[in-house]
Amino acid sequence: MRSRCAMPGLFITLEGADGAGKTTQGALLAQAFRKLGFSVVETREPGGTPVSEAARRVLLDPSLTGMAPMAEVFLYAAARAQLVTEVIQPALAAGAVVICDRFIDSTLAYQGFGRGLPMERLEAINRMATEGLTPDLTLLLDIDTEEGLQRARRRPEQAEWQGADRMEREAAAFHQRVRRGFLELAKKEPERVRRIPAGGAVAEVHCRLIDAARALAPSLPYCQEE
Amino acid sequence: MRSRCAMPGLFITLEGADGAGKTTQGALLAQAFRKLGFSVVETREPGGTPVSEAARRVLLDPSLTGMAPMAEVFLYAAARAQLVTEVIQPALAAGAVVICDRFIDSTLAYQGFGRGLPMERLEAINRMATEGLTPDLTLLLDIDTEEGLQRARRRPEQAEWQGADRMEREAAAFHQRVRRGFLELAKKEPERVRRIPAGGAVAEVHCRLIDAARALAPSLPYCQEE
Repeated sequence: MRSRCAMPGLFITLEGADGAGKTTQGALLAQAFRKLGFSVVETREPGGTPVSEAARRVLLDPSLTGMAPMAEVFLYAAARAQLVTEVIQPALAAGAVVICDRFIDSTLAYQGFGRGLPMERLEAINRMATEGLTPDLTLLLDIDTEEGLQRARRRPEQAEWQGADRMEREAAAFHQRVRRGFLELAKKEPERVRRIPAGGAVAEVHCRLIDAARALAPSLPYCQEE
Repeated sequence: MRSRCAMPGLFITLEGADGAGKTTQGALLAQAFRKLGFSVVETREPGGTPVSEAARRVLLDPSLTGMAPMAEVFLYAAARAQLVTEVIQPALAAGAVVICDRFIDSTLAYQGFGRGLPMERLEAINRMATEGLTPDLTLLLDIDTEEGLQRARRRPEQAEWQGADRMEREAAAFHQRVRRGFLELAKKEPERVRRIPAGGAVAEVHCRLIDAARALAPSLPYCQEE
């Protein structure tokens, strides 16, 4: 766990299935914090630095079939270690609000619950990749598995991978295990991980995120005031 | 540790600095085993599979400056996990002699002794990446640091990275720590890790390797008989 004294910033992560709206909602949340005068750093996993984006390209390349589950875990960990060192830690030290699209919980949900790798192993790798840095708040955008996949498939950037990246090509049962995993993580750490129903209009979901984030930043406005 | 019963093959790794002659000597050793009728698989780290070669390109790209030490460790671990799963384990199970250019000891020497990362952490990652598979024999080609670097720089394939890859650009003091690290590993596990002086003619060094490998394969000919 990081010392809050040494790290004046706020670290918020968005988790959930592809298509749950993490990117859209992350941008709106960033906007809300900026309106209050916070300096905000938006980033994503895997990615956010040249080294991490290089790892991302390997991870999502659908031509790399038969990737060993532990190879996948280590590639995500590499991207994470670089992002924490190069972006997240310095931003938090400078007092910024860091909003990160996916982080440690994605490893537990996808590689742990999804692929069945041992949780203690993944937790140990997460600790090594983050040097123990834990989000102050994790907003879990929870969406029906099939609806999330359909939304993700509609994205224009999916053209890059001819319709679906390596993770999205997994079977529906895999994505269902991942969703259940995320929900278990929220149950296990209810203070940190807040489940946000991700169905409905973008503005509605945004209000739910703001309500959850108000615990960290009491000056965030109430939706009816906006 | 792997069960020798379940794994009829032989697993030999070559370690040492770039320029110590691992590639040349690995090929000659493979030839010697093939002459005896063994099926031999030659491979290298990081690399040897499409996923691992993709990780290799990230690792050696000199444009990726400022790579976090733990990102580097995880990229090597990813390449290793894939190679073990896809190539080494199946080959050993089929009874082959596997000769691998670099393996777990390189992580301990470069990232542990070289970069100063905690050894227990690297050993834990090695165990996760290999599922506990340990070489039957590790041949440490030991060469004077400066001589090794000069030999490595003379290689034609270095043109790819305009003269030196990301690891070779490290300072001389780094490479000296790496060399001392390899020698400590040989001291710590004298049964598995055999130091081979890598200076002198290729044929001479080959004889030293054959002598060391004879412990595993008594039918390997004596050099004077060749």
